[in-house]
Amino acid sequence: MSEDKLTTRKENYSEWYNQLVLRSELADYAPVRGCMIIRPYGWALWENIQQALDRRFKETGHVNAAFPLLIPKSFLEKEKEHVAGFSPELAVVTIGGGEVLEEPLVIRPTSETVIGHMYAKWIKSYRDLPVLINQWANVVRWEMRTRLFLRTLEFFWQEGHTAHASYQEAEEETLSILGQYTDFAVNDAAVPVIPGKKSESEKFAGALHSYSIEAMMGDTRALQAGTSHNLGQNFANAFDIRYLDQNNQLQYVWTTSWGVSTRFIGAIIMTHGDDQGLILPPKLAPIQVIIVPIYRNDQEKADVLDFVHKVKSQLGQFRIKVDEREGLSPGFKFNDWELKGVPLRLEIGPKDVEKEIVTAARRDIPGKQGKCGLPITNLAEQVGTLLDEIQLSLYNRALNFRQSNIFDPNNYEEFKEVINRGWAFSWWCGEKSCEAVIKEDTKATTRNIPLDQPGGTGTCIRCGKNADKKVYFARAY
Amino acid sequence: MSEDKLTTRKENYSEWYNQLVLRSELADYAPVRGCMIIRPYGWALWENIQQALDRRFKETGHVNAAFPLLIPKSFLEKEKEHVAGFSPELAVVTIGGGEVLEEPLVIRPTSETVIGHMYAKWIKSYRDLPVLINQWANVVRWEMRTRLFLRTLEFFWQEGHTAHASYQEAEEETLSILGQYTDFAVNDAAVPVIPGKKSESEKFAGALHSYSIEAMMGDTRALQAGTSHNLGQNFANAFDIRYLDQNNQLQYVWTTSWGVSTRFIGAIIMTHGDDQGLILPPKLAPIQVIIVPIYRNDQEKADVLDFVHKVKSQLGQFRIKVDEREGLSPGFKFNDWELKGVPLRLEIGPKDVEKEIVTAARRDIPGKQGKCGLPITNLAEQVGTLLDEIQLSLYNRALNFRQSNIFDPNNYEEFKEVINRGWAFSWWCGEKSCEAVIKEDTKATTRNIPLDQPGGTGTCIRCGKNADKKVYFARAY
Repeated sequence: MSEDKLTTRKENYSEWYNQLVLRSELADYAPVRGCMIIRPYGWALWENIQQALDRRFKETGHVNAAFPLLIPKSFLEKEKEHVAGFSPELAVVTIGGGEVLEEPLVIRPTSETVIGHMYAKWIKSYRDLPVLINQWANVVRWEMRTRLFLRTLEFFWQEGHTAHASYQEAEEETLSILGQYTDFAVNDAAVPVIPGKKSESEKFAGALHSYSIEAMMGDTRALQAGTSHNLGQNFANAFDIRYLDQNNQLQYVWTTSWGVSTRFIGAIIMTHGDDQGLILPPKLAPIQVIIVPIYRNDQEKADVLDFVHKVKSQLGQFRIKVDEREGLSPGFKFNDWELKGVPLRLEIGPKDVEKEIVTAARRDIPGKQGKCGLPITNLAEQVGTLLDEIQLSLYNRALNFRQSNIFDPNNYEEFKEVINRGWAFSWWCGEKSCEAVIKEDTKATTRNIPLDQPGGTGTCIRCGKNADKKVYFARAY
Repeated sequence: MSEDKLTTRKENYSEWYNQLVLRSELADYAPVRGCMIIRPYGWALWENIQQALDRRFKETGHVNAAFPLLIPKSFLEKEKEHVAGFSPELAVVTIGGGEVLEEPLVIRPTSETVIGHMYAKWIKSYRDLPVLINQWANVVRWEMRTRLFLRTLEFFWQEGHTAHASYQEAEEETLSILGQYTDFAVNDAAVPVIPGKKSESEKFAGALHSYSIEAMMGDTRALQAGTSHNLGQNFANAFDIRYLDQNNQLQYVWTTSWGVSTRFIGAIIMTHGDDQGLILPPKLAPIQVIIVPIYRNDQEKADVLDFVHKVKSQLGQFRIKVDEREGLSPGFKFNDWELKGVPLRLEIGPKDVEKEIVTAARRDIPGKQGKCGLPITNLAEQVGTLLDEIQLSLYNRALNFRQSNIFDPNNYEEFKEVINRGWAFSWWCGEKSCEAVIKEDTKATTRNIPLDQPGGTGTCIRCGKNADKKVYFARAY
């Protein structure tokens, strides 16, 4: 950690973000442009995210597998929209074992193609359906402008790939996963998200249609935090994935794919973080409780540490750590753990030992207001309650922030004004041309058409034609 | 699963292995030569292996992180033995985002170089040591002759990379990890292994010295199932990883690296499997208990399934599954789960329902001998005991097999004879030349110099010179 003050969000939001990621030791730049190292603190956060999602997938009948990193280049070309979307972003292996390869191999930018190829081999009959497979994997997309976590050449994600007997089942799966993503974001990450359908221009390359969850960051820009695609029969056709139905007729399957990536860490940072550093939601924080012992001499140190370890042993159910580093002041340690976003700090000094209390400091409420003394009887229960309160307060704060920054402009002039400082929730005629003009004029894109619609009809914010859907527009990461 | 009988181990061991991996649905061939898909059943096994190892690493203070897949080619060249060892096996990315790259990137074959580069940046002072980082990752080595799990272009592993202030600490870490690998192999995988030191010719490219655990497969060939390397200061020198010691002097660190890979799944298959299929150790088996309901008509079906679900609910602490597939005979199901190596089968038919028992069949003991009736009172305890017995019996069986196939030949003629049907445990002078002649004559290599030595001295099995170490020689995977 560095001695200098973090750049504030107001000064320079983007600089605040970059400094924070580096200083909190979530990640670092790799020697290859656009690649990152996820450092132990960041990876521990990702492991908690993985567990929270993986549990949901397994509870709904999904299983994990591992498909290969390397894909024949020709596979990408089998689905025409897919190749158009991904070919500018490919990393290509042309040499293997010292020899030039006959067919170049691409590092997977996503795995629909190779998984489609295998599903064609594995799926024979309606008895084999549905296939509900997920993988936790790294993928590579040759991005030009990169940001730690938000857009990196290599990133980590889960990609689910399912095959079904009907459109209906595939659509149900797509929406069920969207629901799981929403539940995870809201209840584990305390990140309010809006589930909805992507427009035709914004959908996944090769999908019939795509859904997303969209979150508002601290600078009011939008971040797509997860996507779920109904691929229709596009990949089934491209890879000849067919099954014999109950009437012994060959039918193409219907497939879906869906993913959440390490980008979500960016969403957590920018939803909750403040000028002191990260604020991690208790359910996902690698360290939920940090204990900082305070003493001025060896006698105090002995008494305090003795008490500290007694306290720690009562709190074994939490992810807890004692900061016993030598030669650093308590103030330095407070700042350090605030930078790292630990939700709850327990300060224990000689007076606390005497009174048999600990002083708890909430990361979400700065200064004295966030502090209280907790008697050590029933400490685990009190700490649990505090962590629950912090989790809830982070969610509510982010929700309030989002509510105050979503506008419903009356006309296109107002739209162009509000879009500089928030989102617009506006009627849209559904035409690509209007979307394009808005993007050209304001840099804002359609984020999604929320599942939750006000009903009725209105007039398109841009062209004034009749519109039956309201849409979120925003500048996005 | 296929209707044909599995090739027996005696008929063709290698064919038995390949068929078994495919039919048990552990893995499949990928479209790119030498790559594999780890199917859900295989990946569930790997997840259990991961958990068993990860728990040990975390208990001993290690943390996980993620380093990048792509490494500048020039990094490999900084450590001269390392590049000599790995450059013939590299997959090289020469094109990114449609442009030819200025410097080609290699897909990591292992990560010492890029991690060394980062450690040089992160480590400043003795206070930063030790650094104890592990990563779970995929790596690519361009192998010419590949086998599912045993040798694939892409494989999965964990690679630990640590940095220390002294040789002594690095050596302790190297040996501590070797001990954890041994403990995992013996107690979780029921695979007896011999921990020992690799010879100079067999050590890791760039290591000061390497240790391994070696296991005997069902055809008596050896398999290196995990390695732990003391890298000395080789990578510290190559990447300039230095720290200020307590006297404010710049010192090079001492590093280690260590890994267990998906190859270990091959070790489990070939240690325990028989002509009916896999036998998975209960502690790692994705399904520990399979229940096969048996009935002839709808009334029986209703009664049996009712009882089956009552039984299942008593066994929630185990990884358990009920085979309710329609249109398949119990016999077919028995064979199927035997092929898949589920350690314990519970058969439940109308007579069992009547008597309130279940019929348990152990996978490790074929036929009637392995069957017994279990009253459903206290069922969980009985099932737990049976699984423990199976775990132990698998280990003992493998240990006995290994003991009966390790020989102590009296001279080189005997050596050449026994090495065709087992391992030789022989005195060796330590000369590379003797090792090379033995390899030339018999295809056997030194597996390792076991930590557990008989003491005293002897004469080299090849050249007759004085020798102070006994060594395991074997043909190896």
